[in-house]
This record gives sequence, C-alpha cells and structure tokens, in this order.
Amino acid sequence: MTSPGFVAALVAELGERCRVVTDGDLLASYRQDMATVVPGGLPCAVVLPRTTQDVSAALRLASSYGVAVVPRGAGTSLAGGASAVEGCLVLSTEAMSSIRSLDPLDRVAVVEAGVVNAALDRAAGEHGLMFAPDPSSWEISTVGGNVATNAGGLRCVKYGVTRQSVLGLEVVLADGRVVSTGTRTTKNVAGYDLTGLLVGSEGTLGVITAATVRLSRRPVVPPTTVVAAFASLEAAGEAVALVVARGPEVSLLELLDGTTLRAIDAWKRMGLAGIEAMLVVQVDGRFAGDAAAVASLCEEAGAVDEPAVSTDPQESEELLAVRRLAYPAAEQLGQCLVEDVGVPVSRLPEMIRRIDAAAARHGVTVLTVAHAGDGNLHPTFVFDHGAVGIPAAVAAAADEVFAAALELDGTITGEHGVGVLKAHWLERQVGADSMELHRAVKKAFDPLGIMNPGKLLA
Amino acid sequence: MTSPGFVAALVAELGERCRVVTDGDLLASYRQDMATVVPGGLPCAVVLPRTTQDVSAALRLASSYGVAVVPRGAGTSLAGGASAVEGCLVLSTEAMSSIRSLDPLDRVAVVEAGVVNAALDRAAGEHGLMFAPDPSSWEISTVGGNVATNAGGLRCVKYGVTRQSVLGLEVVLADGRVVSTGTRTTKNVAGYDLTGLLVGSEGTLGVITAATVRLSRRPVVPPTTVVAAFASLEAAGEAVALVVARGPEVSLLELLDGTTLRAIDAWKRMGLAGIEAMLVVQVDGRFAGDAAAVASLCEEAGAVDEPAVSTDPQESEELLAVRRLAYPAAEQLGQCLVEDVGVPVSRLPEMIRRIDAAAARHGVTVLTVAHAGDGNLHPTFVFDHGAVGIPAAVAAAADEVFAAALELDGTITGEHGVGVLKAHWLERQVGADSMELHRAVKKAFDPLGIMNPGKLLA
Repeated sequence: MTSPGFVAALVAELGERCRVVTDGDLLASYRQDMATVVPGGLPCAVVLPRTTQDVSAALRLASSYGVAVVPRGAGTSLAGGASAVEGCLVLSTEAMSSIRSLDPLDRVAVVEAGVVNAALDRAAGEHGLMFAPDPSSWEISTVGGNVATNAGGLRCVKYGVTRQSVLGLEVVLADGRVVSTGTRTTKNVAGYDLTGLLVGSEGTLGVITAATVRLSRRPVVPPTTVVAAFASLEAAGEAVALVVARGPEVSLLELLDGTTLRAIDAWKRMGLAGIEAMLVVQVDGRFAGDAAAVASLCEEAGAVDEPAVSTDPQESEELLAVRRLAYPAAEQLGQCLVEDVGVPVSRLPEMIRRIDAAAARHGVTVLTVAHAGDGNLHPTFVFDHGAVGIPAAVAAAADEVFAAALELDGTITGEHGVGVLKAHWLERQVGADSMELHRAVKKAFDPLGIMNPGKLLA
Repeated sequence: MTSPGFVAALVAELGERCRVVTDGDLLASYRQDMATVVPGGLPCAVVLPRTTQDVSAALRLASSYGVAVVPRGAGTSLAGGASAVEGCLVLSTEAMSSIRSLDPLDRVAVVEAGVVNAALDRAAGEHGLMFAPDPSSWEISTVGGNVATNAGGLRCVKYGVTRQSVLGLEVVLADGRVVSTGTRTTKNVAGYDLTGLLVGSEGTLGVITAATVRLSRRPVVPPTTVVAAFASLEAAGEAVALVVARGPEVSLLELLDGTTLRAIDAWKRMGLAGIEAMLVVQVDGRFAGDAAAVASLCEEAGAVDEPAVSTDPQESEELLAVRRLAYPAAEQLGQCLVEDVGVPVSRLPEMIRRIDAAAARHGVTVLTVAHAGDGNLHPTFVFDHGAVGIPAAVAAAADEVFAAALELDGTITGEHGVGVLKAHWLERQVGADSMELHRAVKKAFDPLGIMNPGKLLA
C-alpha cells in the first residue's frame, strides 16, 4: 500500500512540469503490458516525466516514501516486465521522445528512452544508416524498453541484439542520482561494464532515461528473400544447419513449424498441405549468388519443390507474408501466451519435438516459430478466450518446455526477458550462487528494493 | 604481510595436485607483468592450478587467511593488471590450458583460461573458423587474460572486441564458490549480464577459469592490403573518415603518425621522408573492388603517390611490415610506456595533435599508432633506459593526454584496461556516483576485498 501523502507530494513537485495521472480509470489502463495473462496491480499514480530531472525528482520522492516504481516504455513486454504492482508509481517514458543528437560521421546517436525504435531507424535512414535492433514491436516499442530487455529481433542474426548497439546510458538510480555509463567510442574498457549490466536489467536497477547508441550501415541493396518448404522438421533443421555452417551470412532466418503452417492454412487457404516446416531466409549482402546458395542448400537438405527466390521488394514482402501471418493465425485460435526459449542451433529440431511432445502430453495447442539462425524459438501456447490467467495445462506444458530448453544447453528466454512470468524459473537456469550475486548486485543499485519489484528476481 | 601459516596450508592442500612456487628467485619473477614501470610486490607464493577445483581450494584458503590474490594469465598486461602486491598469492592459469570442447556446427568452444589465444585460433582454423580477438600479444596471451581485460586487437574493427566473442564464463569467487554465467546460445536474457560484467573486470571480481566462446567464420579469401602515405595528419584523418563513412567494411585500419614514421625510417631507412601519416588497411571480404575503393578514397583525401595495393599474402606481409615495426622502432629509442586512449573516429586528428602538443610541452618523445577504424590510439612515451618508474615529465604529458581524451568524448583506455597505471584516473572518467556503484559491485562479489587489490579501483 502506498504511503499516505506520496501522491500529493508527487503532484505538488511535478504536476506543473509534466503529466501526473491520478484518475482511477486511466490508472487502471497502466496495470498491464502485453503479457495480458499477468493481471497487474493498480498504481497509485502514473508520472510521464519530460526530462531526466523530472525522473530524478520522482525517484527521490518514491525513495523517501518507500513507494515501488515500475518503469514503462510502450508496454509491449510479453513477460510482464512492465506490469504494475499494487500501489506503485508507474513511470512512463513516453514523453521523453527526443533524439538529442545524431552524428552520421561517427555513427552515434543519443536518444531519450521514449523514442520509438522505428522513429530512430527512420532518422538514421536519412544518412544511409540504421538502428539495427528490430523486435517485432519495433514500430511501437521504445529504445528505453529495448535496452531494458536487451531486445532481439529478426535481423539480429546478422546485426546483433540491442546490447551490441548500445555504447552508453544515462540512468537514474532509485535514490534520484543521475549516472552516465560508457562513452561515444566503440572501444572502452575503463571500469566495470555497467552499461552491459544495465542492458537487460528490466528496470530493476534504475530507470534508463537516455542511450548513446551505435548506428549501423543500412544495406545498399534490398534483401533477397528465399522461401523453402519441407516435408519434415528434420529436413528443415538440416537446412538451417547447412546454411549456418556453409552458407553466406544471412540477415534473416526464420522457421515455421507444421502446427503454425496448418493454422495459417486453415485461416488463409495458402495451399500448405503436407508441409511440416518452412524456412524464410533473407540475405542483404552484395553478392547476387548468395540467395541461390541458400536455395541450393535448402534443396540439398530435401526441400519440397524448388525454393522461391525473389529480389523484388514487392514479391519479397509477399514471401514474408506467411511469416507475418504466424502470430495472427495463432490469435484466430484463442488467447496466446508467446514464449521465448533458446537453444544452440544444432538442437533446434530436437527442441521443437520436445515442445510438440509437451503440448500433446497436456492437450495444449502450441504453434512454434523460431529465429532459427540464433536458435531462438517462440512456442505460442493457445487457450480459450474466456480463461483468466494461465490455465494449469498450459502452465504445465510451458514448464516442460523451459526444462527442455535447459536440458538442451539453452535458455528460458532469448529476447523477451524474465519479467514476472519466468521470475520463479531464473534460479533453475543460473543456480543458487548466481542468484545470490544477482541479489547483491540488485542491492548495490537499489538498496531499498523499490525498482520494479517482482520482475527478474522473484 | 601474509598471515603466518598460509603458505604452509597452501602447500599442504595443493602441493601434490599442482605446482606451488615458494622459492624466492622464482617468486620475484612474478612481481611484474609487461608494464615494467610498475615495480610490483613480492608474492608469498605462486600457485599454478590444474583444475577449477584447485583454484577453488586456493581461493578458499586465501579467503580464510585474508591473503590478497593476483590472477595472472601470460602476464602481458601493459597497465599493470597482473602486477603482484607484497605478500600476495599469485594465481597463474598457465597450467589450465585445455580446450574442453569445440563444436564447429554451433561455432562454440569451451576453453580453459590458460589456453593461448593463438592456440584456440589454430584449433578453430581446422574447421574454417577463427577466434576473432587478436590483441598484438595474441601469440602468447591467454584467453583468460583476454577476457579479464576485454582485449581488443587489429581485426576487432570488423569482428568486435573480446566481449562479443564470449557467451559464458566459469568463474571462481573469492570465497571459492564456482559460478557459471551465460549459455551456449547466441541470445540469452535470463537475468543480469554477469558475463558482461566479468569481462573486463581485471581479476577484481573473481578468477575466470574457463570461457564459452563464440567462433567466427574465417574469411574465405586472404585479405587485400592497402597502404597509403600522407603529407599531413589532416589528410590521413580525412581518409579515415571517408573510409569509415563511404568505404567498404574493413578488417584492419591502422594509422601511424609522423613521429613513428621518422623513428622507423631512422632505424630501417625505408624512404619515408616527408610522410606525416600512413594508413595500413585490409579488407577480407569477397569483393575484389573493395581494396580499390579504399585506395581511391585515400587518393581523394590527398594521399601522396598512388596507394600500394596487394592481394598477394607475401606482399601483404611486406606492406604490413611498417606497422609491425612501429613498436620495435620506439624501443630503439628507449624505455616505452605504451598508452591506450580512445576517441570518436572523427576526433582522431585532433587527438593526435593534442598528444603532440603535450609531448612538446613536456619535452617527451611520443610515437602514436592507432587502430584508427575504432578511434583507439596508442601513444607510446619514450624515456631513458636507466629510469626507474615513470619520469615526472612523462607522467605529466600522459596525464594531459588522458585529460584530452576525456575532453574529446573519449576514454582513458580502449583495450589495455585500467590496471594500476590508471586506477587514479578512473573516477575522472566515470564520476563519483559511478565509482560508488563500482565499489558496491566489487563488494557484492568480493566482500573481503582480496581479489587483485589496487587494480581498476584505486
């Protein structure tokens, strides 16, 4: 419960400088993020700071009243990373959306946390550059959220995850102090890598208010797309292995499993009968022969029919359509819990078989797509629209999936983060001693424990 | 001073399992690393563990006796990162040199800390792969040391620094507990990035005993080398800017300043008179046109004569010779303090001018080479062979160089680490609040403060 007087003090201090939400209905809209299975608590207030100083003032107040703070970007977390706790202060970065600087020569931009990923990418595009991280939510998610979760995406198979694009951070600690980490240089080994520690810390160590990011060159030629269909998962897995081992560097390498393809076909009638797996691949290098090499490796692995190849942007979009339909097709079937495990690339087929076995054992529908080039799978668990929370059978199947990922030398989360949903699983992956280090690090940054409680650390 | 009984206890526990050095003359050889200006203290013992359990036992004993532990790889630190403190236990990883596994399909190897960088690279080479980090010491330095300092190198302009090749670590904490971080997967966001925090922590948080590393593809064609000479530093700086902004991706981009070239010419008579800067560039991609593009950009920036271009490995080596001569040429002139600052690429010429001004002001000879593509400069301060420690004029000039790097949005160390030499400079770069976080993180891992005291944190 919130300390009496906190909301009044917040309004008094910040009400004229930025928006402070205290209206009940509006507050309720900040309960949840996109992990709608997490009910979330009702915040006592939502603050939308406009400056780093506003954030600092809000955190100083929260510290002195002992109020929990839940930082929030666009609220697109699929793990409950931004779900509110009862009586907390939600700190939304949406009003901090300016690109402070963009230097095309050094390929560095300094952006506020609330800048939408796609907006930064567009600004970079004016100089032939790009902001590489491209989570599926990139048109709406914010750089601050991307950084807080170390977001992945489709092209990170070539360009790396968010961490690889972050040179430094501006962060406000729980007590209101503003700390800068990193530099504008590519190489920097002065002191501990606090930048790296904050990337992916899910708002539990402080509020990221700005990031110094590295921009990448935008490919000069549009990508060539290759789509190959397979009659078995094994053949598709073999194709992935061949492409990774012997193929050219790819900028996208997605796998759709049979359950996903059947769901898409049932909805859109795309003639996918008999196809048990599909690969969608892109290359964006300058070698015209690269796409043909990918197609040839897919054939070597036993693709049914000749893979479709297109350099035409319009046609490429049509070939990508099947990948884009995967999630909407799942949503046709019911409520979705989109999960996120990772395994070494060579274990992909085995991991999908383990997912299917868990689904069958618990009578749950699970559709799996994978960023196959990175061994990162999204098994999507489907259940009744009417259900509140995660049904027991789904939870049991998901737990088996997490256990299988760990058995196969993998991870319980490749890009979504631990959030609330997997906080009770983290120790199984990292072990008790590492958990103790986690808690000690948390305490070093946030001794009162007010930052995003219940996330990452259970 | 060492607690009485520690050495006897160490010998009793480990003497039959691994080598324990207690002989005075041998102990003295472990005082210093390659930063010979740091005198170092005399260790009470040196242990060369063979297994992680040996390391654990040694640290447990050191903790219980309150003895400082200085971890050491090959001792190639140029910052005093492995210099001993009086009465400490030096823990050398040289006997832990096995490659535990190497999986070419997933491109992952698990290697012990004492594996020499070049040995791992050769093992990877048998599968068409490479271990990308290539500090100049790569033929003798160990993976553990590379990881502990987040080593850079020449090809990291294309392939990234050591951090980018590390997926996970096995580390022994000060109290002897063995903790694993990370996974074998490319993407993993389960919990805090303790792997990243340990990379570059210079032995102050624990002893890295093994690393799970990512291997990169070895380029299929040998690199093409381009060498261009310039009559002014500005012209060379402009060439670097043009190559970075508009050129192809380069795998090596080195700059030698006029002072370096004069020292090489005085020694080897290579006809370099009138040349104020030289660029040595390599491209290792598959486009034959890339080297010509680099040469053309150098000409556009005003190179004197046509740049030399060669695809022949033998000729390439000859072109690289001038770069390899830079440090030996400096050594002809006296004792060397090899420094290591970084700036955004666009500030390179200004940084070199600031180095030259500081050198002139204090009457010190400074030769500068730079990993120009990364904005990482090595100003080498030369002084009398007879001097003990760093002469005052050199220290004063070096301090001006560090201050200039910070003024130009740079860093006091791009790849060598803070070590002893810059421990008193770290706070000037990161600020007092960040230092407090550094100390809190240190305490979280090493509450007794026995791990590599005096390094990184003054």
